Amino acid sequence: MGKHRRDPVTAHHRRRLKATLKASKAGAAPGTLQYVGQQAAQPTLATLIEYGRQDSEFLTTQFTSLEQGREFKPTYDTFWLNLHGLEDVSLLQLIGQRFRLHPLVLEDILNTQQRPKVEQYPGYLYITARMVALDEDDLICSEQISIVLGRDFVLTFQEKPTGTFTAIRELLRNTESQVRKFGADYLVYALLDKLVDRYFAVLEQLGERIDELEDEINEGLHPRQMQEIQQHRRSLQALKRGLWPLREVINILQRDEADFFHDETQLYLRDVYDHTVQLIESVEALREVISGLQDSYLALQSQQMNAQMRTLTVFTIIFSPLTLIAGIYGMNFEYMPELKWRYGYWAVLALMAVLGIGLGGFFWARRWISREYFR
Amino acid sequence: MGKHRRDPVTAHHRRRLKATLKASKAGAAPGTLQYVGQQAAQPTLATLIEYGRQDSEFLTTQFTSLEQGREFKPTYDTFWLNLHGLEDVSLLQLIGQRFRLHPLVLEDILNTQQRPKVEQYPGYLYITARMVALDEDDLICSEQISIVLGRDFVLTFQEKPTGTFTAIRELLRNTESQVRKFGADYLVYALLDKLVDRYFAVLEQLGERIDELEDEINEGLHPRQMQEIQQHRRSLQALKRGLWPLREVINILQRDEADFFHDETQLYLRDVYDHTVQLIESVEALREVISGLQDSYLALQSQQMNAQMRTLTVFTIIFSPLTLIAGIYGMNFEYMPELKWRYGYWAVLALMAVLGIGLGGFFWARRWISREYFR
Amino acid sequence: MGKHRRDPVTAHHRRRLKATLKASKAGAAPGTLQYVGQQAAQPTLATLIEYGRQDSEFLTTQFTSLEQGREFKPTYDTFWLNLHGLEDVSLLQLIGQRFRLHPLVLEDILNTQQRPKVEQYPGYLYITARMVALDEDDLICSEQISIVLGRDFVLTFQEKPTGTFTAIRELLRNTESQVRKFGADYLVYALLDKLVDRYFAVLEQLGERIDELEDEINEGLHPRQMQEIQQHRRSLQALKRGLWPLREVINILQRDEADFFHDETQLYLRDVYDHTVQLIESVEALREVISGLQDSYLALQSQQMNAQMRTLTVFTIIFSPLTLIAGIYGMNFEYMPELKWRYGYWAVLALMAVLGIGLGGFFWARRWISREYFR
Amino acid sequence: MGKHRRDPVTAHHRRRLKATLKASKAGAAPGTLQYVGQQAAQPTLATLIEYGRQDSEFLTTQFTSLEQGREFKPTYDTFWLNLHGLEDVSLLQLIGQRFRLHPLVLEDILNTQQRPKVEQYPGYLYITARMVALDEDDLICSEQISIVLGRDFVLTFQEKPTGTFTAIRELLRNTESQVRKFGADYLVYALLDKLVDRYFAVLEQLGERIDELEDEINEGLHPRQMQEIQQHRRSLQALKRGLWPLREVINILQRDEADFFHDETQLYLRDVYDHTVQLIESVEALREVISGLQDSYLALQSQQMNAQMRTLTVFTIIFSPLTLIAGIYGMNFEYMPELKWRYGYWAVLALMAVLGIGLGGFFWARRWISREYFR
Amino acid sequence: MGKHRRDPVTAHHRRRLKATLKASKAGAAPGTLQYVGQQAAQPTLATLIEYGRQDSEFLTTQFTSLEQGREFKPTYDTFWLNLHGLEDVSLLQLIGQRFRLHPLVLEDILNTQQRPKVEQYPGYLYITARMVALDEDDLICSEQISIVLGRDFVLTFQEKPTGTFTAIRELLRNTESQVRKFGADYLVYALLDKLVDRYFAVLEQLGERIDELEDEINEGLHPRQMQEIQQHRRSLQALKRGLWPLREVINILQRDEADFFHDETQLYLRDVYDHTVQLIESVEALREVISGLQDSYLALQSQQMNAQMRTLTVFTIIFSPLTLIAGIYGMNFEYMPELKWRYGYWAVLALMAVLGIGLGGFFWARRWISREYFR
Repeated sequence: MGKHRRDPVTAHHRRRLKATLKASKAGAAPGTLQYVGQQAAQPTLATLIEYGRQDSEFLTTQFTSLEQGREFKPTYDTFWLNLHGLEDVSLLQLIGQRFRLHPLVLEDILNTQQRPKVEQYPGYLYITARMVALDEDDLICSEQISIVLGRDFVLTFQEKPTGTFTAIRELLRNTESQVRKFGADYLVYALLDKLVDRYFAVLEQLGERIDELEDEINEGLHPRQMQEIQQHRRSLQALKRGLWPLREVINILQRDEADFFHDETQLYLRDVYDHTVQLIESVEALREVISGLQDSYLALQSQQMNAQMRTLTVFTIIFSPLTLIAGIYGMNFEYMPELKWRYGYWAVLALMAVLGIGLGGFFWARRWISREYFR
Repeated sequence: MGKHRRDPVTAHHRRRLKATLKASKAGAAPGTLQYVGQQAAQPTLATLIEYGRQDSEFLTTQFTSLEQGREFKPTYDTFWLNLHGLEDVSLLQLIGQRFRLHPLVLEDILNTQQRPKVEQYPGYLYITARMVALDEDDLICSEQISIVLGRDFVLTFQEKPTGTFTAIRELLRNTESQVRKFGADYLVYALLDKLVDRYFAVLEQLGERIDELEDEINEGLHPRQMQEIQQHRRSLQALKRGLWPLREVINILQRDEADFFHDETQLYLRDVYDHTVQLIESVEALREVISGLQDSYLALQSQQMNAQMRTLTVFTIIFSPLTLIAGIYGMNFEYMPELKWRYGYWAVLALMAVLGIGLGGFFWARRWISREYFR
Repeated sequence: MGKHRRDPVTAHHRRRLKATLKASKAGAAPGTLQYVGQQAAQPTLATLIEYGRQDSEFLTTQFTSLEQGREFKPTYDTFWLNLHGLEDVSLLQLIGQRFRLHPLVLEDILNTQQRPKVEQYPGYLYITARMVALDEDDLICSEQISIVLGRDFVLTFQEKPTGTFTAIRELLRNTESQVRKFGADYLVYALLDKLVDRYFAVLEQLGERIDELEDEINEGLHPRQMQEIQQHRRSLQALKRGLWPLREVINILQRDEADFFHDETQLYLRDVYDHTVQLIESVEALREVISGLQDSYLALQSQQMNAQMRTLTVFTIIFSPLTLIAGIYGMNFEYMPELKWRYGYWAVLALMAVLGIGLGGFFWARRWISREYFR
Repeated sequence: MGKHRRDPVTAHHRRRLKATLKASKAGAAPGTLQYVGQQAAQPTLATLIEYGRQDSEFLTTQFTSLEQGREFKPTYDTFWLNLHGLEDVSLLQLIGQRFRLHPLVLEDILNTQQRPKVEQYPGYLYITARMVALDEDDLICSEQISIVLGRDFVLTFQEKPTGTFTAIRELLRNTESQVRKFGADYLVYALLDKLVDRYFAVLEQLGERIDELEDEINEGLHPRQMQEIQQHRRSLQALKRGLWPLREVINILQRDEADFFHDETQLYLRDVYDHTVQLIESVEALREVISGLQDSYLALQSQQMNAQMRTLTVFTIIFSPLTLIAGIYGMNFEYMPELKWRYGYWAVLALMAVLGIGLGGFFWARRWISREYFR
Repeated sequence: MGKHRRDPVTAHHRRRLKATLKASKAGAAPGTLQYVGQQAAQPTLATLIEYGRQDSEFLTTQFTSLEQGREFKPTYDTFWLNLHGLEDVSLLQLIGQRFRLHPLVLEDILNTQQRPKVEQYPGYLYITARMVALDEDDLICSEQISIVLGRDFVLTFQEKPTGTFTAIRELLRNTESQVRKFGADYLVYALLDKLVDRYFAVLEQLGERIDELEDEINEGLHPRQMQEIQQHRRSLQALKRGLWPLREVINILQRDEADFFHDETQLYLRDVYDHTVQLIESVEALREVISGLQDSYLALQSQQMNAQMRTLTVFTIIFSPLTLIAGIYGMNFEYMPELKWRYGYWAVLALMAVLGIGLGGFFWARRWISREYFR
């Protein structure tokens, strides 16, 4: 089977476990902020989008350093500050001071292995969620998105730019779009909606891979397939583990006891909530498909063995008596009358032929030998 | 095994996933209504049935376009507007304006992959449910039915005409029928009752298929059967997934906190509720049957192998010593006294016969060989 | 294996599913009463038992037709009207009018596939339960018992006479018996207690069958046993499915929010409740036994195969070298010195014997061959 | 495998089921008390221990018959009446009258197959629990202990003397012991604590048996081991089924809504409660051990088969060509030049040796043959 | 496989069970304190750390005996008394009297097999938790930590020094550290946080072992691997069993109904709580990995057997006809014309070669023989 490639799911899992461990160690001495993720190539980039209801009330600013950051003062009704890259801890601390974020919130933003959760602080809601994707090995990888929702602002923190929210930025430019017309709460809804859509895409991709695997298994078994079944099972489990707390987060937002969301936006959140429920059901359905696939694999394995055993048995049964007959007439007794017969040899050959064909026909009729098993 | 046909359950599942994905993408920009299902052949058709308690108070109107639709004004106590085909988004929007339906309701009507749910809006209840059927491959397929219940009207939205509600239309013509005498709430009960009956029919069909499969397996194993077991398992899972939220929907309606249902109708809803509970139990029972079938399949597979192994072993044990004896007397030693004996050959043949029959009899007595295994 | 007899559990299940389907169809047009069970041979028979506390206050009346029924007027404190056979819908309707039963109650009485439930109506409680039995194929079959409990009367409806309640009728004749002394509520307790006792009897029978099956499996495997395991598993599932709602029914009666039961009787109901809990535990215990039996069956199957494989391997290992030796000395080379030796033949025979016995002894010592595997 | 001994767990289970059935039948006519357990050899024995706080306030009385029993009048603060053997129903009835026990309590005392429960009656609490032990076949057997706790007295009812409570009797003689100093409620705590300790002992024994079984399986497989695995699994299930209601009982006592326990004793009950939780966890841990053992057993079975198959394959591969060569040179063609060669025989022998050793070495190197598989 | 080493998980489990049993026996006579753990080498050592907010307010005292202990009187705001080694029961009793600890608390401190729990007593909270580690056999072992939290003091009790809390002691020396600035409640948070971090470390180690095992299995199967799978499964179960009550403990502390924690500290406890939730999820993820590993192991076992069976069948099919042909021409009939042919021998050899190569090629083409199976 050649060299074994380390199972990437496990590898991913360990990466995450290690990061958590690192994060947890860092957390033992609160007050010292430290980023636990992988170092990205590009520098930290903050994008500030300010907008009001009027056509002219729209402004985008970008800054990458502390100095630039010091100056930002939003001019219009609502603004959205997005941060790509979390290495620049000092910039983050500045933002933390400016918006009076609790030290634990800053820690959670940097500790990028959080479960999705929502926490209420005075003056703002802190939401973490995970953006999923399939990497080149068809493995689930996920990135943490932290969202802070205040009365008239939204802060988002990502490890690296993924382009998921580009569409929303475009919509914001459009004065007629609902996201522009409604407030900060609707913007958060739009962001979460995008996040949930990513799950649909990932699930669709995974479903395709599983279909391909099913076709492959039906063409012929290979031990690698069993490994893939296990890998997909783990991927689905990982998705499920991510979706359950996400559903809970959206459920909490929808009930919105802290009154950050307008009634209208709450209706939209209910819609996203329905989507997460649907996603969980789809994950369950795929898990059943995977489970059935494993059962099929094992049954096919067993059936292959049956076919081979059958062939072996049939061959042994046919050739054993023929070989015995040949052996008998190969004995060297002096008095073996058949050996002297004129057509003894031919008679024995005929006997063998009859016996062989007879037994073969018998098994053919009983379907112990059939063309199907020679595919 | 020849060419593998793609497992249709998976195919169906992916179709649904894709539609959901499409719907979810469409939903990202609320306000733009878009139908996500398959385009039907026939055009959108709206049927309006108005009726009162009097014999003469019954009127049926059909219209297919926006212009015709503009005119409808119900004259009698209660009316039921049914819409087949959802492509004509403009007609739907007109209806939405006329009955003050929330944009999200219109979206949900068009996004035909909803889970069964009930949502209360000011002035009306919005109910979605799914109408199940078995397609030609014995696969579960389902169609969304959206129901809007107001104080004196019922709106229903279907993708295509299925004839399920024809019987109710007939009953409505009959002044003596309960559905005619009672109000709009009873009509909704009647519709849901019909929907639930469809589940009974589908379950009955599936039960028959499973019985046939069981008979087949007992006649002889074939790898295709394992695939069918998996397919039925998934179908039952799909039914179960559809029934649970449906039960919840009916439970909510029965408690009826918004007072849309009369006390008498609530008793009837409790009856439908009992039916869904019974359906869920039947699904569970069939799932156990399927599960036992899989166990039987694997045990039979194993038992077949045992029988073959037994046969192989018996043949080997019987023929090995006989062949050895023949081999011994086929040796070319100069001094082998038995070879010179007058009846040596016959003695050896007799020895072989005794040995062979003895061993065969031994195994027959121990039931290692029996007629049963040659079936 | 001969002709396959259709698995009776499935058959039974389908019968029930069909009846439910039929019942559910009938239910679509409420108001039309229709009996969905099998037509019984004997006609409908109503038995009226009236009793008071006094010795003389006891009267039994039987009537089979509408005309006779019209006349019954109870004279003493409490009366119990029992109906065997449900074909005579008109008699039932008469009773319904007399006791002001809701049409849905009459429907449920006729639709004999109900789950156990209790429903409160003004002036009476409606209880359905199921009377279980094992049929001649050791399959669970069950019959619906409907009980209506009013302040001073009890109505019971059965499909056919089963003799289960005979003992209670006898006790009623006895002025000293508690059932005579206490009121209608105690009579209902006594009926339910009898019903629950039937479950104990059925479980005991099933336990015996499972023990016999266990003995059989330990004597020798047969594919039929696997089918029996599956059948028992389904029977136990069926019992469990019946017991859970029955427990719930008794629990509701025991809490008795509608005050139909005296405090004293409630204590007795708690006793019956404890019995149902015990029954559920016994069913669980038997399910574990069955589950272990299946594991044992599969392990034994595997172990048999191991034993055969072992025997085959041992025989092959012993005879292969012997046959090779015989083959070698059967070669026709001109210069084979051993062939000329005076005792070459005997030497080779001795060599073979030593080799054969040596290998055999080796395997015996390693327990690859042992008497145990030849049982 | 010789004669099959009936699986004792099943046997025990049926015994219990039968007793329950009997008890349940007896219960149909309340008022008639009847003992359903096995008849013990020794007669009923009542022991009365009266005690106060003072050194002199301690008195033990024993009586075996109704007449003796009539006289007992406790003289000190608290007394504990213990009854061994339940055949003497009349004595029990006397006690029942004396302490105003409800008939259902007397029934439950005699019906010795109760689940652990606690029931509150006016003036006393009725508690049933089960005392577990392992019998000589390592099977769980259990005996019912009924406890009645009044304000200043404790009644206990056992089927036969087990010596479990001897230590408590000794402690009672000691004026300094807490059980002597505190009241009747503390005595009940002490009794329950002893009962729970018995579970620890039984679990420890079972754990040892499972360890031994594990060692045995690692030394060599035997079908009997699979049966033992099943037996232990059932024993653990039985323990679990007993512990859950016991935990509930102690939980109810600890909350003590009827104020039978002092605050201090409640703290001790919390301690016993913690013990039951720990016991349930230990049972779960052992169940996982057993479950893993079964998986190991099956994997080892499969691995044994693999080893045998490997050996068989290797032997067949090595000997098939050798035998063919011998067969070829045993052919009787007139023109076979090799046969005339001077060293043809030796050349062929050498060829065979090279081939045999070469193939053997090949498989040895590939580890198809290794010493490990010959253990 | 040589001598079997007793499975250490079981051994550990039994050790724990025995200690619990011992503890439980000891508990039967409350008032007598007795340590149930293993006797440690070093003597009991009490360390008292007193600290205030000022730089100078920090004092560490150590004492090992009763006499030294009598004198301790804390001088600064907060103090932390840590006890290593629990053999010196008299010292413990002294502490108990000094801080008015309930006798049951002292018992629980000594009975070192408690489940994590938190109990509220007047004036203090009693918390037990377990410190986990992997021993040299990669087995989970755990040590009990008892924590008593008063208004201004913390008492901790450990069986032996583990160095886990050294970092906290260092932080306490630092006037700037949060743990020094905040009160006793924050110290308890810091201790629990350290405990939870240990779980991350253990999980990370276990994850590595499982990865190594996965690599090993993919290189070649060995029965020992199945045992390791079972061992890891049990280890994960043990971790899970420890984490669930720990999560509950932290949850209770976080809600803090007794007001021992400041609001700020409660936020930090929520953080630890999130960590335990994450840990439980990681345990679940690893359990799925282990479960998939077992499935893979069994599938690989089956696939190996398939490969061997395939090889055996191919060899038998190829050599059977060849051997038969050799046997036929080894027969001694007088009239066998082929034997006289000039090139008969060569023709037969050629026939055999054609047949052998043909069959071999056939199977090669069908992939019954392939290089892959000879790895």
